[in-house]
Amino acid sequence: MAKELKNFTKRSDNYSQWYNELVLKADLAEQSAVRGCMVIKPYGYAIWEKMQAELDRMFKETGHQNAYFPLLIPKSFMSREADHVEGFAKECAVVTHYRLKNDPDGNGVVVDPAARLEEEYIIRPTSETIIWNTYRNWINSYRDLPILVNQWANVFRWEMRTRMFLRTAEFLWQEGHTAHATKEEAEEEAHRMLEVYADFAENFMAVPVVKGVKSPNERFAGALDTFTIEAMMQDGKALQSGTSHFLGQNFAKAFDVTFMNKDNKQEYVWATSWGVSTRLMGALIMTHSDDNGLVLPPRLAPIQVVIVPIFKDSEGLEAIRNRMEPIMAELRKRGIRVKFDDADNKRPGFKFADYEVKGVPVRLAVGARDLENGTIELMRRDTLEKRVVNLEGIENLISDELEDIQKSLFERALKFREDHTITVDSYDEFKEKIEEGGFILAHWDGTPETEEKIKEETKATIRCIPLEGDKTPGKCMVTGKPSAQRVVFARSY
Amino acid sequence: MAKELKNFTKRSDNYSQWYNELVLKADLAEQSAVRGCMVIKPYGYAIWEKMQAELDRMFKETGHQNAYFPLLIPKSFMSREADHVEGFAKECAVVTHYRLKNDPDGNGVVVDPAARLEEEYIIRPTSETIIWNTYRNWINSYRDLPILVNQWANVFRWEMRTRMFLRTAEFLWQEGHTAHATKEEAEEEAHRMLEVYADFAENFMAVPVVKGVKSPNERFAGALDTFTIEAMMQDGKALQSGTSHFLGQNFAKAFDVTFMNKDNKQEYVWATSWGVSTRLMGALIMTHSDDNGLVLPPRLAPIQVVIVPIFKDSEGLEAIRNRMEPIMAELRKRGIRVKFDDADNKRPGFKFADYEVKGVPVRLAVGARDLENGTIELMRRDTLEKRVVNLEGIENLISDELEDIQKSLFERALKFREDHTITVDSYDEFKEKIEEGGFILAHWDGTPETEEKIKEETKATIRCIPLEGDKTPGKCMVTGKPSAQRVVFARSY
Repeated sequence: MAKELKNFTKRSDNYSQWYNELVLKADLAEQSAVRGCMVIKPYGYAIWEKMQAELDRMFKETGHQNAYFPLLIPKSFMSREADHVEGFAKECAVVTHYRLKNDPDGNGVVVDPAARLEEEYIIRPTSETIIWNTYRNWINSYRDLPILVNQWANVFRWEMRTRMFLRTAEFLWQEGHTAHATKEEAEEEAHRMLEVYADFAENFMAVPVVKGVKSPNERFAGALDTFTIEAMMQDGKALQSGTSHFLGQNFAKAFDVTFMNKDNKQEYVWATSWGVSTRLMGALIMTHSDDNGLVLPPRLAPIQVVIVPIFKDSEGLEAIRNRMEPIMAELRKRGIRVKFDDADNKRPGFKFADYEVKGVPVRLAVGARDLENGTIELMRRDTLEKRVVNLEGIENLISDELEDIQKSLFERALKFREDHTITVDSYDEFKEKIEEGGFILAHWDGTPETEEKIKEETKATIRCIPLEGDKTPGKCMVTGKPSAQRVVFARSY
Repeated sequence: MAKELKNFTKRSDNYSQWYNELVLKADLAEQSAVRGCMVIKPYGYAIWEKMQAELDRMFKETGHQNAYFPLLIPKSFMSREADHVEGFAKECAVVTHYRLKNDPDGNGVVVDPAARLEEEYIIRPTSETIIWNTYRNWINSYRDLPILVNQWANVFRWEMRTRMFLRTAEFLWQEGHTAHATKEEAEEEAHRMLEVYADFAENFMAVPVVKGVKSPNERFAGALDTFTIEAMMQDGKALQSGTSHFLGQNFAKAFDVTFMNKDNKQEYVWATSWGVSTRLMGALIMTHSDDNGLVLPPRLAPIQVVIVPIFKDSEGLEAIRNRMEPIMAELRKRGIRVKFDDADNKRPGFKFADYEVKGVPVRLAVGARDLENGTIELMRRDTLEKRVVNLEGIENLISDELEDIQKSLFERALKFREDHTITVDSYDEFKEKIEEGGFILAHWDGTPETEEKIKEETKATIRCIPLEGDKTPGKCMVTGKPSAQRVVFARSY
């Protein structure tokens, strides 16, 4: 079994297969009996819970409250905002009946044709429509604004090609939906949440991101502006990891949501929405993991430190446990999540392999001789380096190692991105270089036509127009027309 | 507005209307555009979040892990367990199509008839079927057992008569699904989780509950035994507040889930499931609240202490704030959730009424004269008693008051239940007394026929066969046949 766990496809041989195997072998998720839907297994869910807890704290610290809106959306709501329905109608799960009945032929149950709904419902692919229909009753005057609400929920988009975490028919996410009295305030909110996402990605996931604005082609269906954080995976592809939308007054107009402003005039309300999903799990996995399995940044690891005792009998185990208990108590006092694995039906070698595949940041192994010597073996998952260290003062060492792993993972990922980001000025060079993966900074004339041509010819899209960095104008690499600044091109997930 | 908030229907005039008004006025929830579905508003959701956090902690402390299974269930799964399909088929939301398209007549969008699913899906009314279909692949040997998994999720049952929180088409809940090697272990688990629910109800919700086992008529569809906690509302009706099911090997047989036991023999796996839902919000509201609005036990109150400063100008406000800040810091250090409401667009009278309707346990009001005198006005929401107390030492006083409110609410509810629980020996007396509401302890011959007859004639059901208390045998009040012990009868939600 230990061997089997390690018997991975290598990233360099087949990155995509490596990813699929890793998700299964690290016990994160598996395919379900429902097409395109996954089961998130306890270990995978525990990581998602850590993400949720941090994000939820950040949302609350920026003044947001959670609420819950219906899973189902009346079909007619979808057609109210033209771009929105265009974007989502083709992948909707439609509820048409409200009852099953026994099959008259005795073959289990069938849909009861008498129980057809007058108006069909769709399972929410996103909740702007039902939420703005609700906000109409919540908002009368500027005193009712802003509304800063978030929802943790499941959503459904019937995707044809699915991959666990990255693209699944059902996925878990949070969707913030805010309402404001002014355009400026709404824009500020969209930017604020982009910063929250970038902060979370970099400081908790240890995933460096480029913050930017989407080109019109890549905007959310119904938005005036979509802001995005884009991360680079180890195969050089981009992964859109979170988006924040400035929706203008589009949904307020579609659902007739107006307010009395300070000048006593009726005005349409300004809106934002923003979301991240279980897709972040995909970003986390693909940024840090290696040919031995998952590598987790300590801040999101369900188990940060595992202690594997090496013992012959229960007496030996007890001696180790007694020595380790005060150390574990001190670590827990510091908020460190530590596990003592005393299972006697698995051999140490199996445990080592298992925690390696599962990405536990620090592994300690300790046997009888270590106790005599006052030492312990410490392994860092990120570097796979083992060393023997003193038991005395181990608590400080572990705190330091965890911090260092968190930092090193980010730096390694940042260096990888920098090493795979190039500047290109001619379209011929672009076509050649895009085959190597990575981000390409190039000039673009700002038109959807040019973007479409590049996509068709190279499979690369504009990931974003970066908000930070070099803003020097230039000439479009394809048409030679003026370009305001370089934009990020890449192939993407 | 303050007046309007207070303009309640009284409990004694119309309990049901009082409840509906309270849910709206305390800003807990409202009806949505989807039939039978509610919107849980931020204040209501904040209470639910507190419930979730405590329950989740208790589940983890008893060894459970969270996971996530698909929202949709293949229709054929529902017919595998005969009782289960019988129990749920009549209220299923059925997904039949996976795409909308533009209406050829230009009227918005229509269901695309070309996108009909080969096999329909239903939205989970509960997840035993999809989960046991998954467990088949997780379980090979006794070493893979037990599986102790919980899921936080939304479920859908198309109820005809709905009431906010108490009975809604979509509701939020947790569902634990465990798999065991032996019958004894599964039964023990079902009992353990019943105890967890009772502990939560009594020590966090301050709602006293009767623990018991359901009669066969009232069992969960597919269970061998259903354990329940039953609470009494202020109108004397019972509210089933949480259930834990011993499922035997029914689902293992339906989904062919076997394991190699220690004697190297294949055996079917033993199962439990257990759940509580947003229905608990209904229990919480109806147990404690009064004609002035919501009353919350401190342990579940999003705001435990509100401070309303009474000021004429910003200077006055700052003086109050400066004096209160160290007090608030100390309260927060003790884990007390305190709010300083310095909004200047609402008058103190409005704020008082609003926090009263919202059930904030302790309200402090402080003005310039109080600062001079070193005093503050304290009001307890449970008793509505106001008194002027010294600012010096207020932190200890508040801690004590919160504890006392938590305790008093439980005791008051317990006394109410005791005052409305009677013992009855004749069916004639039963018919008379049941009209007054409350729990009736009576003897029953153990047959579904007698239970059915009582239900038809009196609208009362057996809420449970209590696990604790008097176990003296007797004679059925209806048939005179032997009865093992008294059972709890009541009308119920």
